Amino acid sequence: MASHKIAIVGASGAVGQELLHILGSRGYCIEQIRCFASPRSLGQSVRVGHATIPLQMLHEGCFADITLAFFCAGKEISLHYARQAQAAGVLVIDLSSAFRQDPSVPLVIPEINAHALARHEGLIASPNCSTTIMLMVLAPLHRHCRIKRIVVATYQAVSGAGARQMQVLLQQTQEALGGKPRGAPPNYAFNLFLHGPPLPECGYGEEELKMLSESRKILEDDALRVTATCVRVPILRAHSEALNVEFHAPLSAKTAYEILQNAPGVQRLEDPSAAHFPMPIDASGQDNVLFGRVREDLSHANALDMWVVGDQLLKGAALNAVQIAEHLFAHALKA
Amino acid sequence: MASHKIAIVGASGAVGQELLHILGSRGYCIEQIRCFASPRSLGQSVRVGHATIPLQMLHEGCFADITLAFFCAGKEISLHYARQAQAAGVLVIDLSSAFRQDPSVPLVIPEINAHALARHEGLIASPNCSTTIMLMVLAPLHRHCRIKRIVVATYQAVSGAGARQMQVLLQQTQEALGGKPRGAPPNYAFNLFLHGPPLPECGYGEEELKMLSESRKILEDDALRVTATCVRVPILRAHSEALNVEFHAPLSAKTAYEILQNAPGVQRLEDPSAAHFPMPIDASGQDNVLFGRVREDLSHANALDMWVVGDQLLKGAALNAVQIAEHLFAHALKA
Repeated sequence: MASHKIAIVGASGAVGQELLHILGSRGYCIEQIRCFASPRSLGQSVRVGHATIPLQMLHEGCFADITLAFFCAGKEISLHYARQAQAAGVLVIDLSSAFRQDPSVPLVIPEINAHALARHEGLIASPNCSTTIMLMVLAPLHRHCRIKRIVVATYQAVSGAGARQMQVLLQQTQEALGGKPRGAPPNYAFNLFLHGPPLPECGYGEEELKMLSESRKILEDDALRVTATCVRVPILRAHSEALNVEFHAPLSAKTAYEILQNAPGVQRLEDPSAAHFPMPIDASGQDNVLFGRVREDLSHANALDMWVVGDQLLKGAALNAVQIAEHLFAHALKA
Repeated sequence: MASHKIAIVGASGAVGQELLHILGSRGYCIEQIRCFASPRSLGQSVRVGHATIPLQMLHEGCFADITLAFFCAGKEISLHYARQAQAAGVLVIDLSSAFRQDPSVPLVIPEINAHALARHEGLIASPNCSTTIMLMVLAPLHRHCRIKRIVVATYQAVSGAGARQMQVLLQQTQEALGGKPRGAPPNYAFNLFLHGPPLPECGYGEEELKMLSESRKILEDDALRVTATCVRVPILRAHSEALNVEFHAPLSAKTAYEILQNAPGVQRLEDPSAAHFPMPIDASGQDNVLFGRVREDLSHANALDMWVVGDQLLKGAALNAVQIAEHLFAHALKA
């Protein structure tokens, strides 16, 4: 990857910052990365370690000398610029939801469906963070014993809504501790709320539907059923998920643990004697998705309950995107 | 109830305080209530409104002149003293888990199974808070269309672990904002964790199993299946629950809303255009259990998803206990 001229679109955001850190830690010269941001960031720069990188504005032709671009500035920016970059011969890894359901765009978690990269056309999508964290643990089980249905409730950190929301949570919490009355939504301090408005036609929110549609595409199983309730909690970083997973046949907790012991990118964390199971503060800054409390569902013979926690800015976003690029280059898949 | 000589065992705790407030607001002279607390509270008093009530220690014979006693000092105290009080002719409403599965003890949510009070023997149990909040919304639906299975994930406030834990959350949060490193568990500040240690034999925690066993007893349906994941979140007050409910036959969201519109003690709160659904700050201090986002489960033809939030100190504990007593006296059931 070091020979590539890299651009990050959305470099000043929470995911963009993580991309810079990850690329830097992998030996890439981050001063050579072109960092794009919105017009309101013009004249500003991003600091990563000892480096200071000026932020540039996107414009027609700005990808002329770029070979690899990460897009993490939201769906609208991706819809406007990602295809332009692709047409200019740039390998585009898009972290937004813009192209995830496009049949010509592979939607990839390298540990799970790297084979889908073989048919890429220069644009690859990285999945929704909650979906990635869930599938990192479920895909190895699905391969062993096909999953029929997932019921998931999420506990999502505020940084999933952007870096600035971490500051909003901290500020609102400080104000609440000082006795200041609550203001307009979002009301983060010592509170939680459902994630985004539901769609009138089905009552599910977009995030909840992504967990269905993206899981089906990544696992290549259109019969898979998923129902999700997505909740924003007053946590800075790392998403937690309570999973109830029904398989087509019985799968013991013991077998599930054995399968996951050898699965890449996931890590069992539990010390029952200390009542210690994965927490957001355990997963923050960690590449691995943590899991524990795999138990046979008392209410269903073919189901398991389990608990997973992952850093949604890392494996849920930036790390996964970098892994996609690394996989492509390591396997010299046309780029 | 005003003619009764009332005792509260555990009066200095979070639930005890709520009991005093509720009894005061219902016109009872709270100065006449005998307040019992643990030996470490000896010499202290509780303040409710303008009243100051001295705390007394439990001792043999202390219930001699009492006619109604609320026990909210935990399972061990109830196991030791509640039967003594019952034997002394006191009507005991026990809020602990000590007697909930005892066949001779009715486990009652008055809106749901007040009929079970007819066979009481002087000791009545009030259910676990998470169970009560869930069943307030589900029991009316169950009566219309029998429930087969519930998958529930909770988001439980720290005050469920006692009044002092609210102070611990506030203090830990203040320290975290000041950059102080985290100490020993529980780690509340900007964090969440699974509720209590799991039992080795099944992997479920006690709170999770209560949601099964208590739901079966209250709904009088031993075929009911429940799987729960109970989670403590950094919220001061009010428990939230993501419910996935499978019925024995299809039930539309529209019909569910119609049924719940006339159900006592529950209140629909949703403004989809403002993405406003029940939050802990909405439910705190409210008698009603709030619900919303009832939707037909995309993953199962006979299931609904829904979201409920209730004040676990009120309907989840103190209010329900007072309602049990009021129901007994209003219907002159032997006491």
